[in-house]
Amino acid sequence: MLKDWIKSERPETEEIEKRLEDLRARLATKQTEIRDHKLPVLVILEGWGAAGKGSVLGKIIRNIDPRFFKVSTQSVKTEEEMRKPFLYRHFVKIPEAGKYMFLDGSWMDEVTGEYLRGEIDEATYRKRLDSIKSFERQLTDNGYLVLKFFFQIDEKEQKKRIDALLADKSTKWRVSKADLWQNKHYDKCMDVYDEYLRETNQSQAPWYIIDAKNKKWAETQLLDIMVNGIDTALTNGEHAVPILQNMFPLRKTPKLAEIPLDKSLTEEEYREELDKCQKKLAKLHNELYRRRIPVIVAYEGWDAAGKGGNIKRITGSLDPRGFEVHPIASPEPHEKARHYLWRFWNRLPKDGHIAIFDRTWYGRVMVERLEGFCSENDWQRAYNEINEFEKELTDWGAIVIKFWVQIDKDTQLERFTDRQNTPEKQWKITDEDWRNREKWDVYEIAIDEMLQKTNTTTAPWFVLESNDKKYARIKALKILIEEIEKRL
Amino acid sequence: MLKDWIKSERPETEEIEKRLEDLRARLATKQTEIRDHKLPVLVILEGWGAAGKGSVLGKIIRNIDPRFFKVSTQSVKTEEEMRKPFLYRHFVKIPEAGKYMFLDGSWMDEVTGEYLRGEIDEATYRKRLDSIKSFERQLTDNGYLVLKFFFQIDEKEQKKRIDALLADKSTKWRVSKADLWQNKHYDKCMDVYDEYLRETNQSQAPWYIIDAKNKKWAETQLLDIMVNGIDTALTNGEHAVPILQNMFPLRKTPKLAEIPLDKSLTEEEYREELDKCQKKLAKLHNELYRRRIPVIVAYEGWDAAGKGGNIKRITGSLDPRGFEVHPIASPEPHEKARHYLWRFWNRLPKDGHIAIFDRTWYGRVMVERLEGFCSENDWQRAYNEINEFEKELTDWGAIVIKFWVQIDKDTQLERFTDRQNTPEKQWKITDEDWRNREKWDVYEIAIDEMLQKTNTTTAPWFVLESNDKKYARIKALKILIEEIEKRL
Repeated sequence: MLKDWIKSERPETEEIEKRLEDLRARLATKQTEIRDHKLPVLVILEGWGAAGKGSVLGKIIRNIDPRFFKVSTQSVKTEEEMRKPFLYRHFVKIPEAGKYMFLDGSWMDEVTGEYLRGEIDEATYRKRLDSIKSFERQLTDNGYLVLKFFFQIDEKEQKKRIDALLADKSTKWRVSKADLWQNKHYDKCMDVYDEYLRETNQSQAPWYIIDAKNKKWAETQLLDIMVNGIDTALTNGEHAVPILQNMFPLRKTPKLAEIPLDKSLTEEEYREELDKCQKKLAKLHNELYRRRIPVIVAYEGWDAAGKGGNIKRITGSLDPRGFEVHPIASPEPHEKARHYLWRFWNRLPKDGHIAIFDRTWYGRVMVERLEGFCSENDWQRAYNEINEFEKELTDWGAIVIKFWVQIDKDTQLERFTDRQNTPEKQWKITDEDWRNREKWDVYEIAIDEMLQKTNTTTAPWFVLESNDKKYARIKALKILIEEIEKRL
Repeated sequence: MLKDWIKSERPETEEIEKRLEDLRARLATKQTEIRDHKLPVLVILEGWGAAGKGSVLGKIIRNIDPRFFKVSTQSVKTEEEMRKPFLYRHFVKIPEAGKYMFLDGSWMDEVTGEYLRGEIDEATYRKRLDSIKSFERQLTDNGYLVLKFFFQIDEKEQKKRIDALLADKSTKWRVSKADLWQNKHYDKCMDVYDEYLRETNQSQAPWYIIDAKNKKWAETQLLDIMVNGIDTALTNGEHAVPILQNMFPLRKTPKLAEIPLDKSLTEEEYREELDKCQKKLAKLHNELYRRRIPVIVAYEGWDAAGKGGNIKRITGSLDPRGFEVHPIASPEPHEKARHYLWRFWNRLPKDGHIAIFDRTWYGRVMVERLEGFCSENDWQRAYNEINEFEKELTDWGAIVIKFWVQIDKDTQLERFTDRQNTPEKQWKITDEDWRNREKWDVYEIAIDEMLQKTNTTTAPWFVLESNDKKYARIKALKILIEEIEKRL
């Protein structure tokens, strides 16, 4: 879990500052909410030595009135504690209803440390893990919010920090023997921590890995998860469940507004390229069929962006026995009565086939989010659920390609007006299209968030600049060809 | 999980019949409740070949209108299914909101089978387990009730059933090659099933192991868990969580009403025994201290049963530096604001010490249950939570002894009246005692359930027949001595 974790990209400093300010203000309002709802909140900070847990914790609690929280730093066991069950000193520290308890180091630190130093044997360690799982489950079952953070820095970064602390007389004392030992045995520790996180990563009390290289960014991540976690717990009455951290490797994704849309092709270039690409794709289609590789192409985009025409240029070259296009409208009653991914599981291609989705499961985090067809907790959870879904597909062997067909607002207006004024195109434009157009800005926010959170390395998003439809069509064909060729 | 499972005792046939009738009626009322709450219910039956899944399933569905459920039997993969992701054929079968789906065999059967037959390698199997965990979590996160049952029979029983089926021409066809293979490789299969259950035993979708030796008993267990599981899901708004199966080995426990209370000692016998026992205990106390073994003695019993006097006879012989008595009253505000076990964790003895609790954590399933101080889900969950708590204590090395001090209703009345009429005893009797006395019958039901569900082999209950207090005191001392000697 920790070993294959790939950190998300860190935003620019300015962006971090803005988010921090917002999150700090939001956290400050939470203290009375958790008091009113009698919610006990246990925040556990674990991680590598010198990863900055203490300093981030110091910043976090500045936003909370001292009457609402306690902080406890893991210390050496007292003689009294050594004479009690190992969970004793942890259990007695749990917060009371309506308050926070912050633990700087906890049972993870204790048992992994004892195990690494050989103070407890394998069997005892396994028993401890079971005890810890029961303990955490008992807390959440009884209404506790348990937030577990692991501060991650790599071996080099840890070494750098330790050396810097050692170099200064006034900070030298902050480096413990344990820190030095940990850095020297980084890989061994990594193995144990990785397994510990995996074993104790229960869905009601999941682990959140914090990229701790930059302090402000670490604070931002932690505050973000805390604030969302508290919101979730407070609305637990509506079957809200914890938002799991997105553990999928993500690609760098530009914001929609930053994408230049001036690309175009002449009619001649277009004809030439189209012919070439379609012939190529037809050949590849046979090869896919022969080698039984399934392909899933997902289209999303603004109304009138040219999805339909784009799809036609793809299918134009394909053998009809080997592909299907699934136009996705509002779910039917029997579909609405099931998990929102059900209707897509039902439409998966056989191996060797191509399935093209004209609108997709991303409706969950766009229209369903914005029209209130699902709860906030539902769509917040959906990014991870969708990434898991697509991972099932790629693990199965599918090539998954997702196109966002992009136009600007003016181009949409032009096309809408054209549709309205052209009798044979009038069926393509509805009042709903106009209503959606009015919500362009909120849609753009949702789409940017969607692209950021689901642009995985295994199922990437590709933006098709479609102010010039011809350009977008050729680009789609070329991407498809390239991705298939990569696989073959 | 499966390997160390010890089945609970099967009730008498008559008792089973009675419970079955009640449970069938309750299940019948559930169908409209789940429809009204749009709750989708997925019931998964797994287990050994010839364990009787199909026949129990046949009985269960008789209580449900066919419009409310579907049944799907695991079959050989179709050519179509083989060409889709492995979860495909399972995902498409999920129930719709407000209905049941019963799966006779599911993904467990599929992946463990493929793994056992060597059709998938270790790495693929691990990946499948991860996929299954995500899949089940996605279902429960999205509001599905997922009930997973494993029908357990031992190797001999399976062999007997297979032989019986084979011996009859009309049933011979029901024995598959897989069943024969499974029986021949019972231990190997057991290893794989055990690990599978452990790995996929998530708290929001836990496994329930069904003792399938007797069909009516199997049906009773399954119905019981189903009905309670549905109740839990329907009240999810109040933070209700699944009731985990009690996985602790339980001792046979008589009902309170069946315990004869005519035992007594003469004053002379009592004096003699008391002196002998107290001297013995004093010696053992030193030994416990020297060897640092902690002892926890829990007292529960009817008002005026004689707990106080009983405790005095124990402590009378102990060195005051080595024991503590904790009288447990209603929780203080700071205790009420925390997990109900918190105040007991805080009162644990040091190793080598004896802690005696005059009333205990069992208040959760007696007074808190009956006075409505906690929700039904809370006290239902508490049996398992308490067993887990006591397991922490015994794993730590403690001797845990629980006394139920038993008297009959007449004796209580006598003692109450005596207290009322004796000025120096009047402080011992309150209006509340009289009120509780009126609830004798409901308390007795709760106490019987408590004794049944928490009488574990590691932390057993002992009943002290206390119509004659002298008899009860000597019995307590002797049990204490015996249990300590066993350990030393």
